[in-house]
Amino acid sequence: MHADLHSFATRVREHAPLVHCLTNLVVTNFTANVLLAIGAAPAMVVAREEAGEFAAIANALSVNLGTLDVPQSKAIRVAVDAANAAGKPWVLDPVAVGPLAFRTEFALDLLDSKPAVIRGNASEIISLSGGTASGRGVDSTAATDAALDAAQILALKTQATVAVTGATDYITDGRRTVALSNGSPLMTRVTGVGCALSATVAAFVGVASGPEEHWMATVAAVAYSTIAGELAARDAALPGSFAVAYLDRLASLDAGAFAATLVARDIAAA
Amino acid sequence: MHADLHSFATRVREHAPLVHCLTNLVVTNFTANVLLAIGAAPAMVVAREEAGEFAAIANALSVNLGTLDVPQSKAIRVAVDAANAAGKPWVLDPVAVGPLAFRTEFALDLLDSKPAVIRGNASEIISLSGGTASGRGVDSTAATDAALDAAQILALKTQATVAVTGATDYITDGRRTVALSNGSPLMTRVTGVGCALSATVAAFVGVASGPEEHWMATVAAVAYSTIAGELAARDAALPGSFAVAYLDRLASLDAGAFAATLVARDIAAA
Amino acid sequence: MHADLHSFATRVREHAPLVHCLTNLVVTNFTANVLLAIGAAPAMVVAREEAGEFAAIANALSVNLGTLDVPQSKAIRVAVDAANAAGKPWVLDPVAVGPLAFRTEFALDLLDSKPAVIRGNASEIISLSGGTASGRGVDSTAATDAALDAAQILALKTQATVAVTGATDYITDGRRTVALSNGSPLMTRVTGVGCALSATVAAFVGVASGPEEHWMATVAAVAYSTIAGELAARDAALPGSFAVAYLDRLASLDAGAFAATLVARDIAAA
Repeated sequence: MHADLHSFATRVREHAPLVHCLTNLVVTNFTANVLLAIGAAPAMVVAREEAGEFAAIANALSVNLGTLDVPQSKAIRVAVDAANAAGKPWVLDPVAVGPLAFRTEFALDLLDSKPAVIRGNASEIISLSGGTASGRGVDSTAATDAALDAAQILALKTQATVAVTGATDYITDGRRTVALSNGSPLMTRVTGVGCALSATVAAFVGVASGPEEHWMATVAAVAYSTIAGELAARDAALPGSFAVAYLDRLASLDAGAFAATLVARDIAAA
Repeated sequence: MHADLHSFATRVREHAPLVHCLTNLVVTNFTANVLLAIGAAPAMVVAREEAGEFAAIANALSVNLGTLDVPQSKAIRVAVDAANAAGKPWVLDPVAVGPLAFRTEFALDLLDSKPAVIRGNASEIISLSGGTASGRGVDSTAATDAALDAAQILALKTQATVAVTGATDYITDGRRTVALSNGSPLMTRVTGVGCALSATVAAFVGVASGPEEHWMATVAAVAYSTIAGELAARDAALPGSFAVAYLDRLASLDAGAFAATLVARDIAAA
Repeated sequence: MHADLHSFATRVREHAPLVHCLTNLVVTNFTANVLLAIGAAPAMVVAREEAGEFAAIANALSVNLGTLDVPQSKAIRVAVDAANAAGKPWVLDPVAVGPLAFRTEFALDLLDSKPAVIRGNASEIISLSGGTASGRGVDSTAATDAALDAAQILALKTQATVAVTGATDYITDGRRTVALSNGSPLMTRVTGVGCALSATVAAFVGVASGPEEHWMATVAAVAYSTIAGELAARDAALPGSFAVAYLDRLASLDAGAFAATLVARDIAAA
């Protein structure tokens, strides 16, 4: 599996997929720099007047609800519909869904629009699948294994790949589930690492040969990002320099270091 | 006083206060990274539909007028009212108040809504207290000692702690005033250092035991930030690497280095 | 010419021109840090209610269409009119003009409002001058020499200086044209380097003695930025650390290193 997984990173570098991001105001810059570091081409086209036009040009769409407001919700709706019409995959990052009513209702609505992938923390995934989580909004207070059942249920219900990320990451399409155990606590000390991961997932599914590869592409994106983070934590022990090292590692992680660092195990079906 | 001051930083690390930021478009990312570096939990929930709901969940609210527009002014109003109703302290950063009419009127209005702390540069504090300052908008052309009287008057009028920051920082509640002389000119060469300081003040007052500690918490936040800046300037002489070093120092400043570096003196009442 | 060119950088450091930026959501922070690094004073005043007031106070205005929406288009219109009324130069960065209808129409409209400088990639400049380019939106798929004719035509038509940037940069006022060949491919791996360059151009024309110096100021700004990038690529080989090194080089590039690195040649009139 190692070689297959890293091959998605190689495809991203070769094809430079154009990733359309409708994301939150805090992480636009970091998200774009993460996409550039992995060799993708980021583009944030935000106006309702243009979001649909652009979603059809791009290779994938990444939607993040972190600073959702009414104008952005309209642009997201237009972009998602255009991506679906053009057969382009889109990724949903349901930031802080659960405790906040406006975005929660909007996110539940979006589930009907066929996201290829949903990536969130444990609280967010539990909330989306209909449970009650204990988040404070942006950070999860639940461990990811508490969300594994919810992730599998959500995947089956939406036919999306669901990634629930944290100390251990679970990626499931409802049938296949893998657990990844790479990363570093420093990844939680830099804002936008999770949000940018969703955009990286979009880049990886943007070079997939079709929906049948979306689960594998998501596993590859999460593994690639967390391994880069784990190696960056060897370069830098504090968050300012860690953020710099993380971008450097994302730009340079090769197949050998990837295979030597990956910690993955298959999980039996629920 | 040294041990008391650093204890606020320890409390922030232990309790990870959730700081709701309604801030300007330029500094969202840096502000979030500063809050994460000191151990707080940043959250930017910007929509009018959610700002009130979230202000009640958060431990403190930080309001910054740097890129104010009409939609944001409505969200700020909702958030401030919700914070007050929930008994959560909020901090006002009146960026560029004085020369620009729209934000100046809005800021003067907000003074009636009981900010716990007001932090600005000399021009901004002079303008808020009713004087005429000579700012060009974002940078102050007045030295902070020219604003000391204005700060004390403003503090008495609003019952807020007022911090006027620059080469020397003054923090006053109208009765007690302290002058701090730490920092580095490099702090003015990185955008958002002042704005992020206001969010740090919010984190520190967010772990205060009550309003009676707001003045001390503000002194602690300004001291902590400027000492981190002064030490970071020993690590890096140019602004790109200084910004990285500043985050690293914010994440690692301990009580010993804090006490050894602090330059504080009490100012007699006006 | 070397000494003349670097003298603009010296003037920026001495006068700290206030540069009003109406730019895209992805690059606000980096743009402000670039301006601070070169010694200018950045300010992002975005509301329609204030944009005009502030454009008259500032020394120059930088307009970037990267994340244009309707509210921003109104603020830009107000700011451009105020800058023209006050005799302040303004710079147009027509991000992704060509494939996207809303911004393309708006950009063509703005050409009537006398920009002092237009800076874009090859696709954008070809589109603005009335041709058909092959861009995907944000990145140019055309080499800059393919846009040289378009740049000269656009310059003559608008009486603006036109800079088309890429591996080779061309700066023309329709009569005089220079080609610059400094820089590094790493400059394309950090988001906002091009957008921030437009703001740097605004800072440089903001210290010009008048319109007759706008072409030279633009040459100086492009040369200064690309030389800083070329030298930064000697300090750092990966994009995270390159971004840091780039800011450091912008803050410290002196006349000697500038002259020793500059690669410029005059181009005969079309």
